[in-house]
Amino acid sequence: MSKPKAQNIVWHEGIVTRSDRETIAGHKGCTIWMTGLSGSGKSTLAVALEKALIDRGVRTFVLDGDNVRHGLNKDLGFSPEDRNENIRRIGEVAKLFTEAGVVNITAFISPYRIDRDRVREIMDDGDFIEAFVDCPVEICEQRDPKGLYKKARAGEIPEFTGISAPYEEPEKPEITVKTGESSEEEALQELISYLDGKGYLGS
Amino acid sequence: MSKPKAQNIVWHEGIVTRSDRETIAGHKGCTIWMTGLSGSGKSTLAVALEKALIDRGVRTFVLDGDNVRHGLNKDLGFSPEDRNENIRRIGEVAKLFTEAGVVNITAFISPYRIDRDRVREIMDDGDFIEAFVDCPVEICEQRDPKGLYKKARAGEIPEFTGISAPYEEPEKPEITVKTGESSEEEALQELISYLDGKGYLGS
Repeated sequence: MSKPKAQNIVWHEGIVTRSDRETIAGHKGCTIWMTGLSGSGKSTLAVALEKALIDRGVRTFVLDGDNVRHGLNKDLGFSPEDRNENIRRIGEVAKLFTEAGVVNITAFISPYRIDRDRVREIMDDGDFIEAFVDCPVEICEQRDPKGLYKKARAGEIPEFTGISAPYEEPEKPEITVKTGESSEEEALQELISYLDGKGYLGS
Repeated sequence: MSKPKAQNIVWHEGIVTRSDRETIAGHKGCTIWMTGLSGSGKSTLAVALEKALIDRGVRTFVLDGDNVRHGLNKDLGFSPEDRNENIRRIGEVAKLFTEAGVVNITAFISPYRIDRDRVREIMDDGDFIEAFVDCPVEICEQRDPKGLYKKARAGEIPEFTGISAPYEEPEKPEITVKTGESSEEEALQELISYLDGKGYLGS
């Protein structure tokens, strides 16, 4: 194990800023907020984007149901209030990751415009990238990767987004990928091109 | 702006693991959980440790009252239940940062053993480093950097840790720094030596 390299630390000398972190990382911190119906491909796309970014040396992390619903938000159910609070907390965590200089990707249906807009509001300009994963509900239902649409049609899941509860499409998302038309790889490349074009990923 | 480097991404090919992230970062993810009285030096030490680690290229981030109490936990007050929930959520966020391969440092009084132990329990072995910032209450009160002890003595702050509410010392902290005896720089070097010795910071 190496010895501490910084032998001459001067106490109180400096506070690490977000800009310092971004300079060291070679890219910006930001939140790519994927929103779309169940089965639209959010999680698949998030995981693939994470892989592509890591391969380029970009610090990235995915927040999704697996690591949030069973941890931070395990006390929340599916009432309207709890759904709001679920998205609020995810937004706050995404903000922390953004400040930490991480490109973090969230993959939640997040069906309500007001909830997504509230997250946008707590972030600095440019930090929140709303990525609409746009896929017709018919195609999502046909795919039904988790069998949830079938259950919803059978009345086993009340208030299922797209079937018995609304999905409010983003009005001005930073990027839309049409996963009913594009291949998954095309959608991924569109996301990467957007991030590259806007300078999020550094040079 | 460079063009995407990963032109041949094969969809679904790989999932990024924590181990991948740690390999790329060159160090482990972990949570350094600073606990101690108000005025013991937790925040000062956290900020200095962050600076020292960033200077060594270690990905690090501080969670403290400034970025948590006004954001994620702004819905919480100071009732016993809310204090528990405050620490629970911070623990869950620290776990996410740890999984993301970040050395994250938390700086909260966190006076109750049970709350700290619950955080330890949700983490994998070795991920939770309890750092007891041990300073006699008399010295903390003498320093009183925020004037809180004065207010507590005047009865303006009920249930103030160390004065009118208990602080439960860690029984088996991973490391103790005695900030009433050591200089701040000595305490910092002790923390860095511990992390180095245990291999958290890579080679």
